Order: sequence, then structure tokens, then C-alpha cells
Amino acid sequence: MLNRMKLPQKIRGWAASGPGSKLVEKEFPFPEIGAEDVALEVLHCGVCHSDVHLIQNDWENSQYPLVPGHEILGRVLAVGRDVKHLKEGDMAGVGWQASSCGHCYDCLNGDQNLCPSSGATCNGHTGGYADYHVTSARFCFPVPKKLARPEVAPLFCGGITVFSPLCHLVRRKDARVAVLGLGGLGHLAVKFSHAMGHEVSVISHSPAKEREAKELGATNFFHGDSAALAKELGRRFDLVLVTANVDLPYADYLGTIRADGSLCFVGVPPSPVPIEAYQLLRRVNVTGSPIGSPARILDMLDFASTHGILATSELLPMGQANEAIERVKANKARYRIVLSRT
Amino acid sequence: MLNRMKLPQKIRGWAASGPGSKLVEKEFPFPEIGAEDVALEVLHCGVCHSDVHLIQNDWENSQYPLVPGHEILGRVLAVGRDVKHLKEGDMAGVGWQASSCGHCYDCLNGDQNLCPSSGATCNGHTGGYADYHVTSARFCFPVPKKLARPEVAPLFCGGITVFSPLCHLVRRKDARVAVLGLGGLGHLAVKFSHAMGHEVSVISHSPAKEREAKELGATNFFHGDSAALAKELGRRFDLVLVTANVDLPYADYLGTIRADGSLCFVGVPPSPVPIEAYQLLRRVNVTGSPIGSPARILDMLDFASTHGILATSELLPMGQANEAIERVKANKARYRIVLSRT
Repeated sequence: MLNRMKLPQKIRGWAASGPGSKLVEKEFPFPEIGAEDVALEVLHCGVCHSDVHLIQNDWENSQYPLVPGHEILGRVLAVGRDVKHLKEGDMAGVGWQASSCGHCYDCLNGDQNLCPSSGATCNGHTGGYADYHVTSARFCFPVPKKLARPEVAPLFCGGITVFSPLCHLVRRKDARVAVLGLGGLGHLAVKFSHAMGHEVSVISHSPAKEREAKELGATNFFHGDSAALAKELGRRFDLVLVTANVDLPYADYLGTIRADGSLCFVGVPPSPVPIEAYQLLRRVNVTGSPIGSPARILDMLDFASTHGILATSELLPMGQANEAIERVKANKARYRIVLSRT
Repeated sequence: MLNRMKLPQKIRGWAASGPGSKLVEKEFPFPEIGAEDVALEVLHCGVCHSDVHLIQNDWENSQYPLVPGHEILGRVLAVGRDVKHLKEGDMAGVGWQASSCGHCYDCLNGDQNLCPSSGATCNGHTGGYADYHVTSARFCFPVPKKLARPEVAPLFCGGITVFSPLCHLVRRKDARVAVLGLGGLGHLAVKFSHAMGHEVSVISHSPAKEREAKELGATNFFHGDSAALAKELGRRFDLVLVTANVDLPYADYLGTIRADGSLCFVGVPPSPVPIEAYQLLRRVNVTGSPIGSPARILDMLDFASTHGILATSELLPMGQANEAIERVKANKARYRIVLSRT
């Protein structure tokens, strides 16, 4: 039985009071812990670009006061009556998703991340820029011992977001994967794809990133005009993973994809992408992928543990959450910032 | 050895002399028959919308005088020295493609239809609106006895164009397929998809087509506003096959596709299709498919023979090629016109 007396009375979180406001420490009531819930003491939390979008209300659905943070590494403080896979003291991780209906086709099919009624960890719910976090055990995952470090936190959103399409879109053992953009998501895509045995190419607007790209595991580094690149590269890639989140002439890259390959968005650029059907006609796909399912998160943790994959991170104390947000906005994080409570 | 004396001296074809001109009978020299070539006496030839595009120079690469026709059923008149799979007197079919390089990755991989150097049956080469046709044996296919009727001709372009994506994009046995547009391609898509055991839905702007759609094998018929339809249908289809070739709000239909399903173009609408990445994010694909490979054409002929699938066709004498073109332009063909020499 849950000993309610052992639990804190409050959650102290770094909250935005309205669109674009600075984060300020604020207290929230400690929620009831349901039979299928887990209470975590937050140890570390990654700073994802989605946190910036939420703070700014870019998606017009932010609920204030808003405590961001959805790349959480924590220590289990208490579990609800029906939780069997986690126990007090365990290291556990939480990502973007906090709930799903459990009954729709996608949920039943193991694609809970596609559930139309899925809920988010840090919207309408205090997130990981806080001392404690309570969430559903269905979306809270035990962290393998080898990964129990601050730099595992970003795997729970950034990592799974790139790991999932690398799993479901890449069919060949000898695949060639291009990663467009080398930031928080991109650098993890390079690490995972390289560890999967793919030939990894980084496409970046910044020639200065070549050395780092290769250190992360890229075989090739390309930069420059997209149309010229496409002409030079030809039908080369099985997957072009778009980790950039700005408007670019994405359709140019369709020419670099071989039959049955995909251009996959894992984020949403601001404007619609105009696609000419003739560019798709030789069996080229344009697609997208959102985070990953709970089962895929377990796959990712196993794979990351086997291959020693963590996010290359800058560690900052949680008290510097505002500075962290500014660095992410300015695309200065190399490659992820992780906020630590201790 | 080829007895050159037995062969006709001329090909008489219905030729357009320039962009948009009427077809007029014209004589062409009978080409040399190479070691890997086949000479056919044309018996029947389907009228495809691509013939109209070629006559009109819509793709700005038409070569005049232009004899259209790339859905050919013929009788083998002679074969080159190295041709083993066809002999004089055989019934054989020819589709859009007349050549491929044979050496590129796609050719070597059995995807000759994706070869960047592929050649067309009726551009730079007299097509099937003629008495004779000479082509490469690599793109000339024996016609199963059960299918040796005028209505098989449209399978060689219209048929394979829809059969191929039904094969490579539909993975589920219990798939739900939507066919957008019920014309030459659409009606064949319904027949093939129904015979494959799919639940077939026709989406058409014309409510008058409901009865015919169901006679062809459709379970469901939908018409009306695309956004409202998408809302009504939800995540339903594994494949939405776009056989229409006009500008429509195609992106609306992305909402009707379930995870890992595809919206597939088999033709090219006039304008780019604006796609919002968020519409793809729950693992929805936008793709295209061009005709089909030679091996897939053999698959199609087997399947059509097993299931008794032919194009529902209007038969006209070849002398009425201009009337046929006008009917196709006006979208009046139900569902394909086949021109016959006899």
C-alpha cells in the first residue's frame, strides 16, 4: 500500500505563466497517485525544442502555468497499487507521451503513440523542470543500469523520435541513411544509424559541423545548395531523415532517394511542403513519424545499452532553465542540454 | 533466321504532325528487327490518357510525327535471333515502356520501370495506332490464352499502373483500399483490388457512378466534400490510390489513412500538392508509382487470367482514332476505348 505520508506535499516546478514568459519557480499540489501511476523524484531533464514551442504557445494549445520538460530521468519514489514493473528506488524515464486511450485501433495495435487521444507529459500536467513528477506507469520505463546517467534523459523524446523511423522505415541491412540537420535529434540519429550498421551521411548548412558529424559516426558530410546536392548524389538514400524544423526546399531531396525509400519528417516545418507528384512517381515516399511506441522505447533502451548510446549533452543546473531555453532557441546547444536538480 | 522478305515494307500509322493536331494516316519505314526485337501485327490498341498528353505535347518532349498507342495486343510476325520466349503466331502485349538501360541499379534490381534511361513505346518510335509495331522482346509479353481478347490491351498500361501499387503498397490481407476516381485506371483498380480480397471503396465526384462502382466490385461508394468525407471516414484505408489527374485537395485524404498506409499517385496532377508535415506525422505516406516492372506485368497477367480480369471497354475501329481521342479528352470513355484494326 502506498504510504501517502511519505510523499511530498508539493511539486516545485519552473513555470511559464503565459506565452513566451520566463520560467519562474512555482508550487503545485502534489497529485493523487492512482493505482497505475508512478511518482518520480526528478534527477535530470532534457531540454527539447518542443519545450520552446510549448512555452511560446506556438501550437496554440499550451496550458499555463506551464512547467516544461518531457525528457525525464528520475528515481521512483512510489508506485500505485497495480504497478508491477517498477518499484521504489528504480531509475526510470519518461518522454513526451503521458497517456493514451488504450482502446483505439492504434493503441490496441501497439502504436499508442498514434492514439488520437494521447496526452502530453508537460501540457496540462507539470513536466520535468521540477523536483517531482507523477505519471502513468504505462509511459514510464525502467532505465538499464548502463544508461543511468544524465545523458540518457534526451533519449526519451529526441532519441525515440529518430530511433523509431530508423526501425520502421529502413528495411535493408546495408541501408544508406541521410540525416538532415545536426542538432539534438540529428546527432542521436547519427549515433543510432551508425550503430545499426548503416552508411550515414549528414547534410547540414554548416560546413563547420563536418568534423563533429564524423566523430559521431557519419561516413559522409554534405553541405551546400540542395538542388545541386541532389544532382550530385543521385538515387542514393533509403531514408532522408529531416531533423531540421525550418522551411527548406525539402522536395529537392526526393531526387536523392532510391526506390521505396522515404523522406521522413520528425518535426513540423512552419510552411506546407509543395510536392510535385512526378517527384514521387518512381516509388519515393514522403512521410512522418511521431516519437515512438512504448514497446519501441524498450527496444531503444536495449539497443542504446548494447551500443553505449547516450545524448552528447551540456549539463546545467535546473536553476538555469531560462538560460538553457535561450541556448536552445539560438540553436547553440551541443547537442542537447540536460538540466540537473543536483 | 529472320526472313526479311516476309515482312511488310511499311508501317501505316495514325500520326499527329504537331502539338494537338488530328491524327492522319501516314507511312513509316518498317524498322530493322534486331536480335532481341519482336515484330507484331497490331490487332488492338487501348487509348490511354497519356496518348492525349503526348499528342498535345503536354510534357514538352513529344516527337512528331507522333503515332500514339502503348496498350497493344498483337500477333507475333517475326522475332529476332536471340528471342526465345515468343515465336511467330503468338499473341503478345506491349505497354508504355519499350526499353531500359539494363545496367543501372533499378534495372539490375528488377525495377526496369524506374530506369532513368527508359524509352517509351510511342514517342520517338511509332506506337500502336498502326498496323505493325516493332519493339524489344524484353518489353513484349506473351498473353495467356484466356485473356487473348481486345479488352486485354488496356492491362498493359492502365492495368499494370494500378496492379503494381496494389502489390507493393498493400501489406495486409484484410486491407481497405480506396480508389479515387473511376475512369480507365480506376475501374481496373477496383477489379484487381476486389479480386485480391480487399475491401474496396470508390471515391468519386459523380454520385451517378455508384451503381457501376459496386458492379465492378466496390463495397463502398463515397462522394462529396473531401474534408467532410475525411472527417466521416477517419483512419480507415491502407491505400488511397489516386487515379484522378486533376487538381483536387488531395491532402484532405491523408486523414483517411491508417498508420503506415499510403496516398499513392499513379498520374501527375497539374499543380504541386501542398503537404503539411503534421498530416504525415502519424506514419502516413505520400507516394507514387509508375507503370510496373516486366516481372510485375507477368504477375498481373497470371492474376488477371486466374480472376478473369479485363478492361471494361468500348471497341472502335482504328479508323476512328480521332473520335476516340475526343471521347477520352471529354472523360466519356466507359472505361477504356480499344481501337481494333479488324
